[in-house]
Parts: sequence; C-alpha cells; structure tokens
Amino acid sequence: MEERPNSAPCDPSSAPPDSLDLLYSVNRPVYDEDRLGSRLHRKSEAPITVGQRVARQFQCSGQRVRAVLFSLLPVLSWLPAYPLRQYIFSDVVSGLSTGVMQLPQGLAYALLAAVPPVYGLYSSFYPVLLYTVFGTSRHVSVGTFAVISLMIGGVVVRETPDHMFYVQANGTNASAVVDEVARDARRVQVAVVFTTITGAIQIILGLLRFGFVAIYLSEPLVRGFTTAAAVHVVVSQLKYLLGIKTSRYSGALSAIYSLKAVLSQITETNVPTLLLGVACLVFVYIIKDLNERFKKKLPVPIPGEIIVVIVSTGVSYGLALSSQHQVDVVGHIPTGLQPPGLPDFSLFPNLITDAFAVAIVGYSMGISLAKIFALKHGYTVDDNQELLAYGLCNFISSFFQTFAVTCSMSRSLVQESTGGKTQIAGLLASLVVLLVVVAIGFVFEPLPQTALAAIIMVNLLGMFKQFRDVPQLWRTSKIDMSIWVVAFVSSVLLGLDLGLLVSITFGILTVVYRTQTPHRAVLGHVPDTALYLSVDQYEEATEAPGIKVFQYNSSLYFANSDRYVSSLKEQTGVSPEQIQALRKAQRKKVQKCKDEAERGVSHELVSNHHGDSPKRPSGQENGKVTGTDADSEESHFIQTVAGSSVHSVVLDWSCVGFIDSVASKAVKQVIKEFAAVEVSVVIAGCNSGVLDELQRLQFFTQIERSVFFPTVHDAVLHCQSRTFSHAPETRV
Amino acid sequence: MEERPNSAPCDPSSAPPDSLDLLYSVNRPVYDEDRLGSRLHRKSEAPITVGQRVARQFQCSGQRVRAVLFSLLPVLSWLPAYPLRQYIFSDVVSGLSTGVMQLPQGLAYALLAAVPPVYGLYSSFYPVLLYTVFGTSRHVSVGTFAVISLMIGGVVVRETPDHMFYVQANGTNASAVVDEVARDARRVQVAVVFTTITGAIQIILGLLRFGFVAIYLSEPLVRGFTTAAAVHVVVSQLKYLLGIKTSRYSGALSAIYSLKAVLSQITETNVPTLLLGVACLVFVYIIKDLNERFKKKLPVPIPGEIIVVIVSTGVSYGLALSSQHQVDVVGHIPTGLQPPGLPDFSLFPNLITDAFAVAIVGYSMGISLAKIFALKHGYTVDDNQELLAYGLCNFISSFFQTFAVTCSMSRSLVQESTGGKTQIAGLLASLVVLLVVVAIGFVFEPLPQTALAAIIMVNLLGMFKQFRDVPQLWRTSKIDMSIWVVAFVSSVLLGLDLGLLVSITFGILTVVYRTQTPHRAVLGHVPDTALYLSVDQYEEATEAPGIKVFQYNSSLYFANSDRYVSSLKEQTGVSPEQIQALRKAQRKKVQKCKDEAERGVSHELVSNHHGDSPKRPSGQENGKVTGTDADSEESHFIQTVAGSSVHSVVLDWSCVGFIDSVASKAVKQVIKEFAAVEVSVVIAGCNSGVLDELQRLQFFTQIERSVFFPTVHDAVLHCQSRTFSHAPETRV
Repeated sequence: MEERPNSAPCDPSSAPPDSLDLLYSVNRPVYDEDRLGSRLHRKSEAPITVGQRVARQFQCSGQRVRAVLFSLLPVLSWLPAYPLRQYIFSDVVSGLSTGVMQLPQGLAYALLAAVPPVYGLYSSFYPVLLYTVFGTSRHVSVGTFAVISLMIGGVVVRETPDHMFYVQANGTNASAVVDEVARDARRVQVAVVFTTITGAIQIILGLLRFGFVAIYLSEPLVRGFTTAAAVHVVVSQLKYLLGIKTSRYSGALSAIYSLKAVLSQITETNVPTLLLGVACLVFVYIIKDLNERFKKKLPVPIPGEIIVVIVSTGVSYGLALSSQHQVDVVGHIPTGLQPPGLPDFSLFPNLITDAFAVAIVGYSMGISLAKIFALKHGYTVDDNQELLAYGLCNFISSFFQTFAVTCSMSRSLVQESTGGKTQIAGLLASLVVLLVVVAIGFVFEPLPQTALAAIIMVNLLGMFKQFRDVPQLWRTSKIDMSIWVVAFVSSVLLGLDLGLLVSITFGILTVVYRTQTPHRAVLGHVPDTALYLSVDQYEEATEAPGIKVFQYNSSLYFANSDRYVSSLKEQTGVSPEQIQALRKAQRKKVQKCKDEAERGVSHELVSNHHGDSPKRPSGQENGKVTGTDADSEESHFIQTVAGSSVHSVVLDWSCVGFIDSVASKAVKQVIKEFAAVEVSVVIAGCNSGVLDELQRLQFFTQIERSVFFPTVHDAVLHCQSRTFSHAPETRV
Repeated sequence: MEERPNSAPCDPSSAPPDSLDLLYSVNRPVYDEDRLGSRLHRKSEAPITVGQRVARQFQCSGQRVRAVLFSLLPVLSWLPAYPLRQYIFSDVVSGLSTGVMQLPQGLAYALLAAVPPVYGLYSSFYPVLLYTVFGTSRHVSVGTFAVISLMIGGVVVRETPDHMFYVQANGTNASAVVDEVARDARRVQVAVVFTTITGAIQIILGLLRFGFVAIYLSEPLVRGFTTAAAVHVVVSQLKYLLGIKTSRYSGALSAIYSLKAVLSQITETNVPTLLLGVACLVFVYIIKDLNERFKKKLPVPIPGEIIVVIVSTGVSYGLALSSQHQVDVVGHIPTGLQPPGLPDFSLFPNLITDAFAVAIVGYSMGISLAKIFALKHGYTVDDNQELLAYGLCNFISSFFQTFAVTCSMSRSLVQESTGGKTQIAGLLASLVVLLVVVAIGFVFEPLPQTALAAIIMVNLLGMFKQFRDVPQLWRTSKIDMSIWVVAFVSSVLLGLDLGLLVSITFGILTVVYRTQTPHRAVLGHVPDTALYLSVDQYEEATEAPGIKVFQYNSSLYFANSDRYVSSLKEQTGVSPEQIQALRKAQRKKVQKCKDEAERGVSHELVSNHHGDSPKRPSGQENGKVTGTDADSEESHFIQTVAGSSVHSVVLDWSCVGFIDSVASKAVKQVIKEFAAVEVSVVIAGCNSGVLDELQRLQFFTQIERSVFFPTVHDAVLHCQSRTFSHAPETRV
C-alpha cells in the first residue's frame, strides 16, 4: 500500500487529531455528479473481451495441469507430506473409534433406507475409502447419515410398494403375503441406481462450480428441515421399537399415515422387543450423556452404540429371541463383498427430482460441517471439490451396491474429538468396517432390529432440541422464524423432498418480500452535522421548508417500483394526480369565468374568486386578456391555488444497489409527473455502479446528470439555493 | 409544513448561498452511533397492538359502509353524476365503433378457445355489461382477448382430446371420425367451468387485496410472453388459413407438433380458402395501417374487421363456398341467449393450476392497460377493485356460457381514440353484440373460418414487433434481456401456463442473483470532500494508510453472506486464516529456537531471525524468558512478522437495506477473526432500520455499538486517530 501521510482527510491545521474529540471538518463547493465528474479523473479500464476470457480459461501449462490435478486429488498434496511419527497414533485411535460407530450406524441407517442391513455396511466402506482420496476436509466422517438414508428410503418405498410383491398364490387381498426377498432385491436395485444418479448430479454440479447452491439452505431452514427429518425418522422407527409390522408409507402426509398405522396396531406390540428396545435406548442415551459430560476426562468416548450392538446380539442369540419370542432380527448377512454391477437405469425419470434433493441436501450437510471444522483448525475446504468428492464417492460406490452418503455429525465429532488429524482416520474406520464385512458379518445376524431403532432414535434426539429455536427466533427475527416453521411443517407434511423445495422457494420469496417492504422514511437534517435522519424517529431531525428527503432502503426493480412510487407520493404528500385534477377543475372554472367576463360580467368573477387567491394578478380584471400572456398568468394563478407546498424532493438512493429497466422507467415517469406540478426531483447518494446502470438503461436521454448529487446534504443545499435565487416571492 | 428559516443546513455567515458556487461546510466532532445517539432524542412511538389494528380494521360506521359500497360498485359514484349532454355523443360513437370490433373478434377468438363461435359472442356481451358496474377504468374495452382465449383453448383441448370422441361405429383408428357435436358440447362445458374457476380465483385474490401480484409480471417478461403467445396463435391459425384439418395440440412442445402437423398436410391446402384468407389478411392489414397513419384525420377508425366479416360472409354465401369449394365456415349459430346453467365442477382438480395462470395473466393484461389510460387522462384505477371486477365478470358470466375475458388492447385503443369517456361506451358495445345475438346471428353462418383466422393474425402482428426488444435490451440490460428470452422460449416450448411459471420464477431468481453479485469496491477518500469513491475507478480516490474501506452494494442475508465475507477478505487483502497459519508456523519456529536457546545456543537464534525482524525486541536475547512477559513479547514479535499491513477495515453499509440472522452471525464472526489478527473492523453508514434489526438479532451482545459510525468519513477519521494515538511506533 502507498504511504501518503499528507492524504489524511482531516485537515490537521484547523484541529489537531485528538482521540477524545476528533473533528469532522469539510468545506467545499456543493457538487452534483456533473461537477464532481469534471473534477475527477476516471481510470480507463481495458475491458476483457470474451475471446481473452476464454483464452485465459483454457490456458494450458505444466503448472496449471499440476494445480488441476492436485485440486481434483487432494490426497496428492497431503499424503506425501504426512508426518507419520507425529500423527499416526491419534489417527489410529480416532479411526478405530469412528469405525466402531460406522458399524452400528451403517446397520441401523440401512433400515431407514429400506434395504437389508449389509448394504449399510457396504455404504460405510467404499465411500469412506474414496473420500480419503478426493476430500478436502481433514475431520469429517463420511458415511451413512440418518436424514439422507430416510430420504432414500422414502423414494425406494414409493417405487417398490409392498403391493407390487404380493405372492400370487394367495389371491385374497386381506391376507396378502409379501414376497420379501423379491421386494428387498428390487429395493436394493432402486437405492443403488438412485445413488448413481445422485452422485452423477453432484459430479456435474461440482464441475460446473455450483458449490454455492448450499447457501440457499440457510441455517433456520436447515434446522427446521432436520427437525422435520427427526420427526420422520422417529415415526418410521416406532414400529421396530414396538415390534409391529406395518407397511411403510412415502410421499405427502406419510408421517401421519405411518403414525396412524402404528397406533392402530399398538395392541399387537411385541413386549420383549419393546423392553429390549427401551433398554437399549436408555443405555445409549446415558452413555451419550456421559460422553458429553466427561468429554475432557475421557481419552476416547465410550462406544455405547457398539456395546449395545454386541450385547443385544449376544442376548438375542443366547435367549433365541427371534425364534422363541418373535423378536425381529437383522437376519441373513452375506459374508464378503459383492462384485461390481451396472445399475438399472430404467427408473431414471422417476428418480431424477428426488436425486436432486438428496444431492443438494447431502452436500449441504457435509459442507457446513466441513466448514465448521476447517474454521476451528485453520484450514480451508474447497466448496466445489467437496461437491465433486461426494459425487465421486456416491457414483463410484454405487457400482458396488451402496446407497448415498454424506457426513454424519455424530461420527465427525467423534473422529475430531478423539484426535483425528487427517483422513487416514477415515481410511482406518473404513478398514474396520471391511474387516467385519469380510470376516465376521454373520455374527450380527441375531441382532434385534429394535436395538438399531434405539440407536437411530438416540442419535436424532439432539435434533428435537432445535424446537427451542422457535421462541428464540420469534424474538430475534420473525422472518427467520417463519422460514424455520415453513421448513419444518412443509417437510413433515409433504415429505422431505417436496418440503425442501417448498422451503427453499419460501426462503427466496422472503428476500423478495423484504425488498418490497423495506424501511422507508422522510429524512430531516440534524443541524450542523450534514447528517439526515428520520423525522419520525428523531426530534432533532428538521426538514428544510419545501424540501422533502425520501429514503427507501432497497434496490429498485420490477417488483417494488410501483410501491416505491406510491410510497414516495404518500410520504412526501405530493400527489400529481390530485393537483392536476384540481387544476383542471380550476382551469375550467377560470375558463367559465373568463367566458362570462367576456360577456361583460367581470365583477362577478372578482367577487367569486377573491377568497381563493388574495394575491391574484390584476391582469384579468381588465376584462379581455389573450394569448400566451394570459396563459402564463392563468397557470401561475392555478399553481398558487392548487400547487403543493413542496417544491423539491430529494430521493436518497444510497441504499439502491441495483436498478432495472422497469424501475428506471417508473422513476423517469415520476420525475416528469412531479415536474408538471412544479416539484423538482433530485437524487442523492447514488453509487457509481447504479449510475452506470442508469446510463445503459438510457435514463439520461431525458434527465440530466446534474440532478444527481453525491450526498443528501449537497442535494438539499442545491434545492435551497435554487428556491432562494429563482422564486423567492412565491415561496417565502 | 413548519417554516424555519434559521434551520438552513448551510451556515450563511461563512459563505452566502450562491447558485453558482454553493458551499458545503460542516465542522463538527466525529460521531460514532453511541455519541450521536446521546446527542439525539428519539421520539417515542406508541406501538399499535394487534387488538387495536383489528379493531380499526373492523370499525363499522355509516360512512365506512358507504365507502365500501362505492368501492365495490364504482358505477354508483360515476353514473349519477354522468354529464349526459356533454358525454353521450362521444360515448355512443365510441360504443358503436367498439361494438363492431367486438363482433368479429368474439367470433374469431372463440376459435382460439376451441369452442363454437357463438360463445365468443356471449363472452362479448355479459362480461362487458358487468364491467360497467364493477370496473374502475373508464376507457378499457373488456371482452375476448387472443392470449387468454388461446390459453383456455389449450386447456380445453387437453381435457377433451379428439380421440375421446371417436365414433364407435368406425372401429379402425386410421379413419376414425370424431363426433364433433359431442366434442364441442364437452369443450363448452370445460371452457365454462374453467372460466368459473378463473373468476372465483380472481374474486378471492381481489378480496385478499392481492392486486399487487401483477408486479411479478415485469415488462420484459410480459413482452416475451405475449410474443410467445403470438407465435402460438399464428401456428394454431395456420390450418384455418390453409383450410387443412389437423388435430389441435396442447401442453409442452405443442407449437412444434402443430407446425409439423400442418406442414405434413400442406399438400392438402384448400386453395379457395387460402386465397380468401390471404385477401382478408391483406385487407385488414392495410386498413389497420391506414387507421394508424391517418389517426388524426379520421373521425372514427375504419372498421376493417367488420367489413371483412360482412364481405366474406356475402362472398361465401353468394358463391356457396362451403358446399361448392369445401371452405370451412362458422356453421350453425343459434339465435338468442341461453338460459343460465350450473358449471360442471368435476374437472376442478385438473383445471385449478391453469385457472391460476389465466386469472393472473388476464388481470395483469387488464390492469397494465387500465393504468396507461388512467395516467393519460388523470384518474386512478384501484388494483384490487379491478381484480375483483374481472373476477365478478368471469364468474357471473360463466353461468351464462361464456369463456374468460380481459381487456383487449386493440379494442381499448379504439374505444379511447373514438372519444369514449366512460364505460357507457362499453355498455353500448355490448348492446350491439346483444342485438346481433338475438336478431341476426344466423346471418354469419356462411362466414369462412379463414376470414376469422386472418383477423386474429393481423391483430397479433403487432406483437411480433416486440422481437425488436431483444437487441435493444441486449444493449441496455442483459438481465432484462434474459428475462425476455426465457419468457419467450419457455412459453413457446412449454406452453403458456408452464412457460409463465418458469418465467416468473426466473424473474424472481434474477433478483436474488443481483443481490449475490453486487457491485463491490475498495473506496478511497477524495481529498477535501468527505466523499469516498472506488480506488479502481478514480485517480483522485486515495486510501489512508492501513485503512481499507469496503463497499458492497447489497443487503446481507443467507444467500450472500458467505460471498460478502470472502469478497471482503479478497478485496482488503486481509486473510486471517493465512496470517494465523503463518503465525502458528512462526510460533513453532520460535518455540523451537527458544528450546534450543535454553539448551544454550542463543547465538544461532539471533543470526537465524535477523532478516525477518530487524526491530526484534531484545528480551529474548538474554536467554531465558518465561511466563506472560515472554508470551506478550513473543506475540508482538509474531505480529510484526506475520501481521497484515492493514490495521483497520471500514465496512460501508449504506447500501444494506436489511440483514438476517445468518449474515449477522457471519459479520460477527469476521469481526472476531479480524480482531484476532489485530485488524479492527468498524461499520459506517448503517441506517437506523438495520441498526434496530441488529439489536433484535443480538448483534450487540459481543460487539459494541461504538463500532458503528454514521458516515464513512467519521469511521476513517476515528481509525486514523486511534492509530496515531495508540500504536504510532509499530505503524509509521
């Protein structure tokens, strides 16, 4: 930066800078944009042509290729520099801790995704491995996640409803039996191709640098949405906890249908299932609580979930819960991995919109978590590379029969808090899962589903705490609260996909709403300060006579230009229509009188109008007056009678960030209308970007640049001087 | 207004106001919002409670009832005061001229709406009559309109495709014959119930005061949309002009299918039909052109359309075109009106969304036209009453078998230009139509359809001129152009209803896009002016050393707060992450050196770091330094090495019209991050509405109000003074 000690804006000679009573001292001529422009020298910018831009984009050099490669495969940049001795121990501890969480969560979330549990294990292995290569976050734990799994489950159930798989032999509907093997096989197919599409969408969005889409999921929206997801999850898990068999619903109102179905069958609750489930629930909850409470004392969090899985598997096996007490268990878990297969793309058109929803939700959850950790540990994550990484994880893995994944908050917190330094921890976690899959998967076959339901529920209990947002948002921001509520209600009632769409749309509309109902005020001068504040708010703000300063805190464009104009007329009290109508009426009256006067009844006229215009020019009393002279006399007379007491309006445009053609035309029109009733409109505080825009919109074809002033004070001074010098007799 | 001659903001003693060289002179202390607030007195506002508001809303008095009645039935206010002698002649001339246009247009647009022509006549009678009672515009001509008719036709055809009415007797598909009587009867049913729903929607929106919805149809959008409608109309009329029989398409890509169907049968063109059609086309076009050219000389425009109708009816009858030359004619026109009937509401769910589109498009077309005339003639139209009026016209009329109507531009221009003063003209026009319907409707039975197609096409030729908008918008505003193009392309390809939805969504997204990519700049001081302009644009704008002024022309909210932060870091060159990382590395290095120093190798340390920090404090050279003393020394040392050359950042928030919780948190975070690397952030030009919002968002729990300054100059002066007084030795 240039060091220019003499450029201090405050003139040191008149008042030395004092930290207690600094002086703001400015003495300069009043500028309008014309005069200011003539004083200043605009730097010439060499515009970049499209050709140059394209050329720059596709410039190819060794360095560039290297940069692209490193950005696409972040592992290349950090793995070679991995400080083995320093990091490996923490990474191993963290990896093992995360791995033992991946296992039960994988099994549990597969239930949510409506596929057999082993696919949850696959999904906890491949994508995690791939994220090590493509990811830029060092701390997040990629893998199965409740909300995403639930969204997948909704789609899967919708595409493969139970009634598609009624066994033919049993003809009557009442006691129809579902061919579960065929159904589950089909469900896996659907989940897999859905994941392929989700991944493809993420890859495409990532390559198009659409990483910014996550911003539309604002915090209140995400919190409302995830709370709704928690409601869906709990409702969907009730039947496992109670050991009831109901069909699964999807689409609008599915939560209500599910709840109704569970309640209608509540009498058929399987008591051992319920008892075991509640025990697991309480145990996992207590462990979570202990982990939270003794965070600092515990070297590694107690792996409550894996304990529940192991113990309940043992209990189930020992007591033969499945065969003796009809407790639903996980069932067959094939050992080993499956060979890669090609997804079945015939369902593509049915899945594409849902895949969009999952792609964006998944990415948003991940990136927000990644950014939190990055901030905490002082590194940066790359939006677009993360999007690409999730896309690649989902896309490639789906060929190995996985369902869509993203970061899980609970696991990521464990991975980070147990000391994970890099994705080596993630890699190790995935190896833990792999070990189970290839070696001892069958061990978990007697695991009761109610234990998994308990794990899922406890993991989502935290989300219900988000209900506390509502009263808090009510106090701080009604609009944010309405976004939260709309996101929650629409996602609970319409389902997560449609609910998300509705809430994003609503969120965007609130922005439009805000620009349509901005803060607006008539400003007055705070004496001796050149500051202008709302006359309604501050006693010191005084208006200069005949001058109204109108402030409107928004950019101007098609959806608010009408309101801007009506608000301007309302707040300044200048209504050209009324004045014109009044004048028309008076002109008629005058005309009538004149006609009568010409017929020789001039005395009547004088007595008629005496009250209206005491200072009426004497010209007409002589009887016949003709031509332009009479016209100007007349218009002057009318003006005094039906004019506005306001002669100048200053539009404070310091808040106008952009303007479009509709608004520019509306403003032009208003300036003309006001000019017709002798109210001059000037514009203040318009920034150079908007001035350039107005130039392009051909605003200055009819309006001079000199109606623009750099500050409100300049504009007011100008208006005052014009009044004093040009028409002192009519105004004072 | 108060007259306070002494409140002139400019001090007259120092420089008398001179129109040529006014002085802007301000000498005052530097204010921050804290100090300014203590000087000012805020007026207390008595907040209006919800109860009071409701009470006010439902206050009932005789005057209020009267006002409501007059507002609902505007006819009550103007008809009793109708200046019969003065207005009646012009209104009769105008009414007859408009009436003879209603006739051919009614017949023609019924073709577009896919119902028999007589229903076009009904639609040109009842609603026009009703609008006299309910309407607030004095000059518009309500009745059939091409775009609306076409939209209705699309829906009608979709709901009653030809194949639903194949005559059973003829089994083979190839030569299937359509039962046209049954089909047309059903089509009328659909069109009528569609109109009922449209009317109901308009009534409801009107009662809810939703008259503002029209603003979302910005001018570029409407022009793109109507151009697309013209394309649809011309394509749909080609077959009548050529005398070809093809089925009518609706929905996405229907224009392309229709065109393909016509082209594939072009060899079957009926030559007499084509010749007659082209003759009519040329004739109507020439008459339109003459009317336009000799607007001022002609007392009444030449009624080209009715001439074409009469002459072509005569020719068709005389030459027996229908029977001899297979020219399609209008066919049976029942005489007299039909008794009212109840619409068939079973189709409700299929029609509701389309009815929304027609309700809003119809209203928007009407209100924009009404506003143009109101502006020209100096009266006002009431948005909500107009919406209600259209709703009542459509709803009530639909019980008498009409289809939806709105204002027609061409007819309204005739009604106004022939001297129409009030809706008495409209009333008379409707009586002309009534006369034809009850007395001589059958006369038009031999009227060739090709003549009607010619009338429709000529009426829409003007819309094709709107293609000229595109190059013009390209020059003035790329965003407006993109709205035009999206509206046109989506409406042509997806159909008018879906196209409208897409274009409105796109229009709203452009607003969001603009707030995400606003103009942003680093500002510099223009010496002696207290003005701050972009340092990239103006040579005179100079930055004070160590102070960056950052301007961002947009409100701050969830969708741009991330960008705001990154743009701030990029433009000011302050990157807390980098500085922190650098410091961390250096702290390690220092630690390492210190460790070594403790082991007695202090000399090495000195030679190592001499280059980096020439002014390094001497404390560490003594070898062992411990505790807080050493820490502060160390941090100071690090700061000088890895600090930013910027010590203060001023955020110019004069363009921030609103802020939400996401952005407020982001800004808080940035202030903290910057503070951690010894860069202080102050905010300037924040208006009081935003300050109140920040208060509610609990922004001031961690941040003091004194970081806010009323102007950028105040903020810069403050930052400069703090530098001079607190840390002169490290900065200069």
